[in-house]
Amino acid sequence: MTQAFARFLAAARFEDLPSAVRDEAARSLLNWMGVAVGGSRHEAVEIALAAVSPFAGSPQATVFGRSERLDIMNAPLLNGISSHVFDFDDTDLTTAVHPSAPVVPVLLALAEYRPVSGKDLINALVLGIEAECRIARVVSPGMQEIGWHATGTAGVFGAAVAAAKILGLDETRMSHAIGLAATQPVGIREMFGGMTKSFHPGRAAQNGLMAALLAEKGYTSSLDGIEAKRGWANVISTVQNFDALTGNLGTRYEISRNSYKPFACGLVVHPVIDGCIQLQNENKLTVDMIERIDLVIHPIVMELTSNRKPKNGLEGKFSVYYAAAIGIVAGRAGEAQFSNAQVTDPVVTGLRDRVETTVDPSLRQDQARVTIKLKDSRILERFVTHAVGSVDNPMTNARLDAKFLELSKGILPDDRARHLMELCRTAERLADTGDIARAAAG
Amino acid sequence: MTQAFARFLAAARFEDLPSAVRDEAARSLLNWMGVAVGGSRHEAVEIALAAVSPFAGSPQATVFGRSERLDIMNAPLLNGISSHVFDFDDTDLTTAVHPSAPVVPVLLALAEYRPVSGKDLINALVLGIEAECRIARVVSPGMQEIGWHATGTAGVFGAAVAAAKILGLDETRMSHAIGLAATQPVGIREMFGGMTKSFHPGRAAQNGLMAALLAEKGYTSSLDGIEAKRGWANVISTVQNFDALTGNLGTRYEISRNSYKPFACGLVVHPVIDGCIQLQNENKLTVDMIERIDLVIHPIVMELTSNRKPKNGLEGKFSVYYAAAIGIVAGRAGEAQFSNAQVTDPVVTGLRDRVETTVDPSLRQDQARVTIKLKDSRILERFVTHAVGSVDNPMTNARLDAKFLELSKGILPDDRARHLMELCRTAERLADTGDIARAAAG
Repeated sequence: MTQAFARFLAAARFEDLPSAVRDEAARSLLNWMGVAVGGSRHEAVEIALAAVSPFAGSPQATVFGRSERLDIMNAPLLNGISSHVFDFDDTDLTTAVHPSAPVVPVLLALAEYRPVSGKDLINALVLGIEAECRIARVVSPGMQEIGWHATGTAGVFGAAVAAAKILGLDETRMSHAIGLAATQPVGIREMFGGMTKSFHPGRAAQNGLMAALLAEKGYTSSLDGIEAKRGWANVISTVQNFDALTGNLGTRYEISRNSYKPFACGLVVHPVIDGCIQLQNENKLTVDMIERIDLVIHPIVMELTSNRKPKNGLEGKFSVYYAAAIGIVAGRAGEAQFSNAQVTDPVVTGLRDRVETTVDPSLRQDQARVTIKLKDSRILERFVTHAVGSVDNPMTNARLDAKFLELSKGILPDDRARHLMELCRTAERLADTGDIARAAAG
Repeated sequence: MTQAFARFLAAARFEDLPSAVRDEAARSLLNWMGVAVGGSRHEAVEIALAAVSPFAGSPQATVFGRSERLDIMNAPLLNGISSHVFDFDDTDLTTAVHPSAPVVPVLLALAEYRPVSGKDLINALVLGIEAECRIARVVSPGMQEIGWHATGTAGVFGAAVAAAKILGLDETRMSHAIGLAATQPVGIREMFGGMTKSFHPGRAAQNGLMAALLAEKGYTSSLDGIEAKRGWANVISTVQNFDALTGNLGTRYEISRNSYKPFACGLVVHPVIDGCIQLQNENKLTVDMIERIDLVIHPIVMELTSNRKPKNGLEGKFSVYYAAAIGIVAGRAGEAQFSNAQVTDPVVTGLRDRVETTVDPSLRQDQARVTIKLKDSRILERFVTHAVGSVDNPMTNARLDAKFLELSKGILPDDRARHLMELCRTAERLADTGDIARAAAG
């Protein structure tokens, strides 16, 4: 199975990609770059940069949104962290993999090291995402239930395959790269809600790149790394659905289902925030008008975001109570709404403590019911059928652009930000995609 | 529990170590350095060096047995690979962890980067091994049965703790380093018998060093990385015995049970080889005298080394049939006896095909019965009570020295090899243990 998959990957060409898939790749690239630039001044990035700088190699690759440059192995760690640290990057809803974060940092680092055309970059991006999402689906939901973070454990395959395509590996070396990736999963769920969560895609990017570089030079591994008795799928999960790996290869593309977040927190709370913002926009609510807020939500929401009293911005992203309150108070939920100051603001916490939840397993994950009881006895209600940013209600290109500009504000000058967006949008036509990476320097 | 363990580690001083523990640390260091120098010209090392050189940083640390130098993050990868590639390094028999391979490369790299005294190095070595072996015992044998390679999955803790001691991390940062290690396990058992197996301790060394360097600069992680609901122990295994983590801390030391191999293959076949070599030495057997060889062995031997017809040296290490045959033909089983040429030599394979096995669960793992039926109808028999190299029949210092000199022959001049042995033996008295690393340059 690994070999059949490797054969497809080694042979797959840009020319084979449907135009909708190419377009989605450009949207993924643009959205990813926005969150990477936006996250580039986060404390986690500063710390990691201080840690790796003393032993880093030549300045081969850009740390996006910053002036520092690192070697091609260390830059992806930093860019992987910055792109996930706001929890604002793209998501594969079936597996909870954040597809771009382990893949794009590797591609853009390689593009600064050796010329990579736009066609090759887009093809490698699509195939990297194809690999990580399909391999994650083989073991879902068992892997996640055991406690693994799919973005790190499956993401390493995305990075390995993307790099292997840029390096031009044949079927056998592609299989070895996949085997070397299989033996380096990253990420346990205990780290959710902390700095180490964003380390996972960064390290997965490095592990995958290392796998591909070793395989390129002839390092051998298993040819059956995914399906062998003690291969990745059997070791990391209690569930194995190997059909997910090779079914409809080359006709159905995983990236087509990629989703982009309008709000800077976990997707599971998006329906609640969407409903709260709608009610706020329509009713111009103030906190002192509200007696209580009742949320009816899918069970996953309580599993992942049940923190009743978050103490800082990061914890706020894992609190459905805070999410509802800030949706009402701010009428939006960008990264600025998850600052430490906002999360501990007495006005917001007062409202947060009047939020109650009821779980309803019959809801879809992109649905929620928000009921606001006002002090004047009026009751406002909104049922969100498909939250904005879900597959059935995707972000428009205009909303993606607005998100990019908001994230890059104060980091890149406006004209530079718009130029960078243009490069991402038109990536497939570039002769040298290193231009994208260089344009993202801060 | 993680925090209590971190508290012990952060406070533990060289002066607290019993002298037998210090002596064992020196034996571990000497044995490890011998196999690292011996493995340094292996193809896996050459390939990995070619892969990492283009992005490596300043020449901060020695690649042992070679002239190349790499930065402190990349050198441990190479030295981890070379020290495990012959499968000839030390072993903790309870968990199958190879304790030194993830730990020593990190210590010696740091010792070239900043002055590290002999006392600090020995203390960090003991504590690194303490951490990985205890943490492995928490989840044994469940983790190994699922298919994880303990040297990579637990070894990362050894590397992290050893580095954290050298960096002088306090209890909280030690906990964060352990948390960052917990989220980066390496190694699935599908890779046994191939080049990627030796990648595991090398990568575990890097992951642990990265964990400690990040924690030093303030990167935060879980404070309960091992025992949390979705922490390492619960995610990686179906078995958790948390008493193993903190019981008798500071009085019973894991390194006291470390074992060193006389033969260049898995420990499980050592009893068979020991018995065959004894019978060969006493009877001066030739292949044409032998009708058949019958082995009675512990079940684990067939689980790990049942390859009937190994095709190359590495596969030969995982064949109890080949092991018995080469013990008779060569009267020894060093690395030279596991060359591709030896494993495919018709004289040896002819005898190999006359070896039969019977499993007996009542045997201990360090026991075996070897029965040789000669063509003249005589029957020779040997029951091995404790194989040489086991805890109850350890390698003497003289045998460790001989092993070191055999491994370093052709790589280091004899006087240099003896000087290096002396530095390892007297490590705790050195003012600057960077001297050890520099003396191991090829």
